[in-house]
Amino acid sequence: MAKQRTGKSASKVSTLHDRIVVFDGLIVSNWSRSVFDDMGKGGLTAANCTCSVWEGFQATMNNIVQWKRWFREHGDRILQVYAVKDIDRAKREGKTGIVLGFQNTSAFEDNLGYVALFKELGVQIVQMTYNTQNLAGSGCYESRDSGLSDWGREVVAEMNRLGMLCDLSHVGPKTSEDVILASKQRVAYSH
Amino acid sequence: MAKQRTGKSASKVSTLHDRIVVFDGLIVSNWSRSVFDDMGKGGLTAANCTCSVWEGFQATMNNIVQWKRWFREHGDRILQVYAVKDIDRAKREGKTGIVLGFQNTSAFEDNLGYVALFKELGVQIVQMTYNTQNLAGSGCYESRDSGLSDWGREVVAEMNRLGMLCDLSHVGPKTSEDVILASKQRVAYSH
Repeated sequence: MAKQRTGKSASKVSTLHDRIVVFDGLIVSNWSRSVFDDMGKGGLTAANCTCSVWEGFQATMNNIVQWKRWFREHGDRILQVYAVKDIDRAKREGKTGIVLGFQNTSAFEDNLGYVALFKELGVQIVQMTYNTQNLAGSGCYESRDSGLSDWGREVVAEMNRLGMLCDLSHVGPKTSEDVILASKQRVAYSH
Repeated sequence: MAKQRTGKSASKVSTLHDRIVVFDGLIVSNWSRSVFDDMGKGGLTAANCTCSVWEGFQATMNNIVQWKRWFREHGDRILQVYAVKDIDRAKREGKTGIVLGFQNTSAFEDNLGYVALFKELGVQIVQMTYNTQNLAGSGCYESRDSGLSDWGREVVAEMNRLGMLCDLSHVGPKTSEDVILASKQRVAYSH
């Protein structure tokens, strides 16, 4: 009886996941085929997958190179999300859509033009800081939060222009408030 | 009479340029609004414009950042070419299509994954070497041409896969022959 109930419950979850779009706000992982398989088994339609935590420009590009390889090698399981229609396609084809995201603005270094290059390569979500201070603002572990810098304001404006989502996870409270006030688009706490 | 003939001739040229697609195989310039204006006045439908001569990965990305800015700032005069349909669009809209190209493989450094990143950002034509030896092969000014290296063969195969054109201008004779034999796609001497 207990067994049957478990079975019914599992079947209900499966039906629910089959019907709806399930988006995971943030995943960091030791990526591999088996992780991509598990994302599918778990009924995940799409996810924000971190490809930069504290890396600079070129090291982040190297991570993106690796993702482009995974998209080719595991194209039967995952696909890259450039727009909402790609999430729909992932749902339709029974794959998991990967939204590339950063947990830092470190990859932009001090070149505002890099933001558009990363956007063109498919980066859609960027966290302003990761725990500590960077060029844009203060992280949530800083003893004093200096708020959003002038550079940080330029980054927010450029992300707004390009349609990239500002993520406030790991960001200090004052910097978060400044981003909320500066951004002309909705912001998010992905995790 | 002579004046009239000149007038007629100029008018004929103008009519010819209006009718056909005119592609310039290679332009290097001190780019500016007036250069983009002149490309239009000269009846140029599209051109291969160099954005890397001997730069490495990041310096080439910086040049591409500058081109993306020009595409935005001078969008009434130029547009970026990602596919043949963009050349048709340039013709239709009276603009000049810009095909981003390299005169070297130096921007790939020693990471084959960089080739796909540059392709996604719009780089369509890549010269294997520029006058001297690089990781891929020998330039046309080397006293001895060592031919296409194993790395160079990987680059040619990756460019073939992605649909990027191998340019043999400035390339040594033996390296050129090796590329012609190795490439599964047509190659070109752009200039």
